[in-house]
Amino acid sequence: YEMTVAQGEVVGRINGLAVMGEDSGIVLPVMAEVTPSQGPGGVIATGQLKEMAEEAVQNVSAIIKKFSDQNISEKDIHIQFVQVGEGGVDGDSASITVAAAVISALENVPVDQNLAMTGSLSVRGDVLPVGGVTHKIEAAAKAGLERVIIPAANEQDVMIEDEYEDQIEIIPVSHISEVLEVALAGEGEKDGLVDRLKSITGQALDRQPVNQQGSGSPRPQ
Amino acid sequence: YEMTVAQGEVVGRINGLAVMGEDSGIVLPVMAEVTPSQGPGGVIATGQLKEMAEEAVQNVSAIIKKFSDQNISEKDIHIQFVQVGEGGVDGDSASITVAAAVISALENVPVDQNLAMTGSLSVRGDVLPVGGVTHKIEAAAKAGLERVIIPAANEQDVMIEDEYEDQIEIIPVSHISEVLEVALAGEGEKDGLVDRLKSITGQALDRQPVNQQGSGSPRPQ
Amino acid sequence: YEMTVAQGEVVGRINGLAVMGEDSGIVLPVMAEVTPSQGPGGVIATGQLKEMAEEAVQNVSAIIKKFSDQNISEKDIHIQFVQVGEGGVDGDSASITVAAAVISALENVPVDQNLAMTGSLSVRGDVLPVGGVTHKIEAAAKAGLERVIIPAANEQDVMIEDEYEDQIEIIPVSHISEVLEVALAGEGEKDGLVDRLKSITGQALDRQPVNQQGSGSPRPQ
Amino acid sequence: YEMTVAQGEVVGRINGLAVMGEDSGIVLPVMAEVTPSQGPGGVIATGQLKEMAEEAVQNVSAIIKKFSDQNISEKDIHIQFVQVGEGGVDGDSASITVAAAVISALENVPVDQNLAMTGSLSVRGDVLPVGGVTHKIEAAAKAGLERVIIPAANEQDVMIEDEYEDQIEIIPVSHISEVLEVALAGEGEKDGLVDRLKSITGQALDRQPVNQQGSGSPRPQ
Amino acid sequence: YEMTVAQGEVVGRINGLAVMGEDSGIVLPVMAEVTPSQGPGGVIATGQLKEMAEEAVQNVSAIIKKFSDQNISEKDIHIQFVQVGEGGVDGDSASITVAAAVISALENVPVDQNLAMTGSLSVRGDVLPVGGVTHKIEAAAKAGLERVIIPAANEQDVMIEDEYEDQIEIIPVSHISEVLEVALAGEGEKDGLVDRLKSITGQALDRQPVNQQGSGSPRPQ
Amino acid sequence: YEMTVAQGEVVGRINGLAVMGEDSGIVLPVMAEVTPSQGPGGVIATGQLKEMAEEAVQNVSAIIKKFSDQNISEKDIHIQFVQVGEGGVDGDSASITVAAAVISALENVPVDQNLAMTGSLSVRGDVLPVGGVTHKIEAAAKAGLERVIIPAANEQDVMIEDEYEDQIEIIPVSHISEVLEVALAGEGEKDGLVDRLKSITGQALDRQPVNQQGSGSPRPQ
Ligand SMILES: [Ca+2]
Ligand SMILES: [Ca+2]
Ligand SMILES: [Ca+2]
Ligand SMILES: [Ca+2]
Ligand SMILES: [Ca+2]
Ligand SMILES: [Ca+2]
Ligand SMILES: [Ca+2]
Ligand SMILES: [Ca+2]
Ligand SMILES: [Ca+2]
Ligand SMILES: [Ca+2]
Ligand SMILES: [Ca+2]
Ligand SMILES: [Ca+2]
Repeated sequence: YEMTVAQGEVVGRINGLAVMGEDSGIVLPVMAEVTPSQGPGGVIATGQLKEMAEEAVQNVSAIIKKFSDQNISEKDIHIQFVQVGEGGVDGDSASITVAAAVISALENVPVDQNLAMTGSLSVRGDVLPVGGVTHKIEAAAKAGLERVIIPAANEQDVMIEDEYEDQIEIIPVSHISEVLEVALAGEGEKDGLVDRLKSITGQALDRQPVNQQGSGSPRPQ
Repeated sequence: YEMTVAQGEVVGRINGLAVMGEDSGIVLPVMAEVTPSQGPGGVIATGQLKEMAEEAVQNVSAIIKKFSDQNISEKDIHIQFVQVGEGGVDGDSASITVAAAVISALENVPVDQNLAMTGSLSVRGDVLPVGGVTHKIEAAAKAGLERVIIPAANEQDVMIEDEYEDQIEIIPVSHISEVLEVALAGEGEKDGLVDRLKSITGQALDRQPVNQQGSGSPRPQ
Repeated sequence: YEMTVAQGEVVGRINGLAVMGEDSGIVLPVMAEVTPSQGPGGVIATGQLKEMAEEAVQNVSAIIKKFSDQNISEKDIHIQFVQVGEGGVDGDSASITVAAAVISALENVPVDQNLAMTGSLSVRGDVLPVGGVTHKIEAAAKAGLERVIIPAANEQDVMIEDEYEDQIEIIPVSHISEVLEVALAGEGEKDGLVDRLKSITGQALDRQPVNQQGSGSPRPQ
Repeated sequence: YEMTVAQGEVVGRINGLAVMGEDSGIVLPVMAEVTPSQGPGGVIATGQLKEMAEEAVQNVSAIIKKFSDQNISEKDIHIQFVQVGEGGVDGDSASITVAAAVISALENVPVDQNLAMTGSLSVRGDVLPVGGVTHKIEAAAKAGLERVIIPAANEQDVMIEDEYEDQIEIIPVSHISEVLEVALAGEGEKDGLVDRLKSITGQALDRQPVNQQGSGSPRPQ
Repeated sequence: YEMTVAQGEVVGRINGLAVMGEDSGIVLPVMAEVTPSQGPGGVIATGQLKEMAEEAVQNVSAIIKKFSDQNISEKDIHIQFVQVGEGGVDGDSASITVAAAVISALENVPVDQNLAMTGSLSVRGDVLPVGGVTHKIEAAAKAGLERVIIPAANEQDVMIEDEYEDQIEIIPVSHISEVLEVALAGEGEKDGLVDRLKSITGQALDRQPVNQQGSGSPRPQ
Repeated sequence: YEMTVAQGEVVGRINGLAVMGEDSGIVLPVMAEVTPSQGPGGVIATGQLKEMAEEAVQNVSAIIKKFSDQNISEKDIHIQFVQVGEGGVDGDSASITVAAAVISALENVPVDQNLAMTGSLSVRGDVLPVGGVTHKIEAAAKAGLERVIIPAANEQDVMIEDEYEDQIEIIPVSHISEVLEVALAGEGEKDGLVDRLKSITGQALDRQPVNQQGSGSPRPQ
């Protein structure tokens, strides 16, 4: 019954990506809405989230609370993983999807629907690597999507088949501000948001200098 | 002992639909009431709701909180699945029923009782597809109901037997505002509510353009 | 050790009825008190209530909160199922008993003790059918009670033995206002309460018109 | 290591009684203190209370909240079952002990220590019957206590051996105000408290008229 | 890795005592700190406390809240059982240790470190007996400590070996004010605290008269 | 996919250390952010923390709340253990890492990334010993880090192989103020923070005098 929306611009909806089983990706849309709160404001996430996914939502909330400053204390933030199967949602690879969907709903700026994304997020705005990148990119391509955002740290993991290479553009990012730069529609309003997000999380880990120096010191374990 | 009400107009009561076992539908009425709160306002749902049904109620609350704006913070919203059996209620297919019953109670506008409905709901007002549509429609017809609302995305799933075809009108919808357009009784007051609901959730996913273009890009998985 | 009080008038105490095992009814008294709250007001029910009974209390609270309007926010409502056995209380058939006991305590109007009652309650004030009506009526008669309130929808289920027929009067009701009309002692004060309750829940399901038309459309499932 | 205090007058301490195993009673002291609250006021009971004992404390709190009116909202009520064994405390037969200990602490009026008590309590102040009365009375006598309060409804259950008959005075009561009349030390202050308690819970079940008329209608089940 | 501090004076740190297995005592230090609260004030105890130990902390809080009166409502009280093993902490014999550590932190008065202590506590300030006193005293002596506080009610249980008799002074106490009299360093400030504590809990059980009269009435069970 | 950052200065990020299995250390980065709160302020820690790790975070919060005084009541403190495996985080050896990361985020002062650290923390600021120090130091050296902070009480446990001895500087500390002295970048701002932290926790256990006197009285158990 599920449908992927692959074109147009929509507020508060983003095509996320997930892995099913060992070697299969799917498009897993996330929708968000920001409403007046009933009682003290809170974050309400549905989709039968497992512990790791719940914690991913908590990490995203750090970005949102910094971004929207004090005017969020009397609002509820609703995050809905749409038409998830019985197993629910686990893992933290939808973090950037959730963050972008909430910012879209909060600021009423639409998101391009020809786009999918996957990426974990630190509480300071860094995009952290995730698993299953190749399968996810193929799922996005099969669903007719034209662009896919992945963590820069996952670039070397991409091994998609030839047939998909021309269909879909892969966009590596290392900070949540880059995600919004790519995903949001419109120009003037978007640039203001991206700048605000950069300044707010400007203290976060800056990956580029480390990579440029290529000193070999960051060693995977 | 259970009774389906199949005519007249009632505030805060709607004939929902559920599937029992593999191939049997039943009418599952939902009642709602909005009261002054005791302590901070909240949503109180009874009927031994399982996790997916609890989350469906949380998703519905996003619509209600946007719709009623700030005057809901000192109110409790009661949602009662009436005379549910021992197994309780699961699934999210009563979402539009719950949303419409609460709005009826909140605004004191009656709902037609010759009507049943089934449909999931996004936090932005989209009506999402559900399972068991054919069995549910047959159950509504057997109970003497004259009209049944289903998600537009389920239209192709309807395969009811000939005997029911003339008894019951099937009304596909894709947004919660269409549900209220069909279900609420009275005219003047209803139109105001429907318009308000459209404007509030106007940013939500707009299905029509995607379908009109028929570009084949939305692919089921 | 348990004692049924079968005469006089008492505030906040009502003889409820329950089924034990397969074919045995018992008198199960409910007591209520309304007190200043400690912290935010709440409903506190004791008697080792199982899930269905807890939810029945929540449904009753919808009626109470509408009835008493805003002056309940700094009060605690205590509901005590008196001297329940080890198994605790389950089911929702004490709903009307709880509602009437709390209204009696809240308004300080006594309840006739020669009376027992059983009935489920919707959040809008409808009295809904319950199980075991015959066994419950016999238990009330054996305990020396003279009148018993049952849901109108259960009238056809009553099959009591001849010996009890002359001992006890059976009073079918379909709305909580009828329960109070029968149960409360005194006249002037009672009428005011019943009228207030009718006006507050006047939007609830009105069964009479449906039954009068007898159109056969409400079909049990 | 445990010690029963059997003489003098102490604020906030009462010799309760409990049954251990099948046929053995013990003295189980209860201590209470009322303090400024940290956060919203609450009732804090320790002694590894099982569900029935926790609920008994909630029922007692109804009496306390009515008695002390609004000045309790910024206080914590501490109730300590002293030196309970590993099994914790269950049952509701310490209800009158808890109620009297808290009122003693709240009003700073001492309680006679040559006294033990057992009895359940309704939310309206009635003393309800309990189990094991004979074993409890014998335990009080063995511990050197001179008086024991029991529920009036348990009078017929008392079958103590001759050796204890002369040692201990048995005092049946049917309302919490009678418990305080017997247990509190001092005169002037005590009478004021007892009167206040009577007036506050005066709407509760009045057993005497029913018993006087002796109409046979209250039938045990 | 654990270290016992056996000399000097430290604020908010006390050498508690515990029993391990059947016949072995250990020194189990407790540290406390009082901080501005985040949200409503509370008591936060760490060391993987089991139910009985959690309840002991709640009983201690009754003393602290009375002692510090209203200025504690915006403070958090942190209690840390330092470097507890994997089994966590159970039992209530650290109650006087916790109470004294918190009062030391609250009032910024140092505690002698050449001292260990064990004892349960009533909500009114009585020191109640505990188990394993002999093993605990030996553990304190082995750790080089010079004084050990035990409950007066445990005096008859002390059976330490000759080698420890000259090493360590045993100090029996029956009220929390005596614990502070012995444990706190400094004079002027200490005396004020002890007096305040005595006056606040002066209504608590006064053991001396009972013992003096030696009337035999307190009988162990 | 994980990357250790081994140079530069970053706000709110520190290279922690953990033990995996029996004899293997890993670098486990911690990130922190302080945001406006939604509802009452709180501490939100992610990384599937087990009980001991949750309690370590609570102990750290005592230091943070004292340090930042009252301006933290409307802030949320986010603590993220980055890219933890499926087993989650247990133990309390990341306490000093968490404390330093939060203070860095709160004060916006960067932390040197060529540094790793391990150490437990008391609620009064003492650095307490931890396990696996040798394996952790080797993991830090392998990851290209140049300095590692360990508890002074663990100095005698260090037995690293020759190849690492010249690669990495080992810095033993006994108080959280020393951790910040070593870890924070910049001078003027850092010194102010370290002084403030010293004065605030100046009442905590002062290890030096005890060690200097070397009286043999502190005995491990
Ligand atoms: Ca959930
Ligand atoms: Ca919006
Ligand atoms: Ca529920
Ligand atoms: Ca209404
Ligand atoms: Ca309960
Ligand atoms: Ca009353
Ligand atoms: Ca408890
Ligand atoms: Ca007092
Ligand atoms: Ca804990
Ligand atoms: Ca201090
Ligand atoms: Ca967690
Ligand atoms: Ca910052």
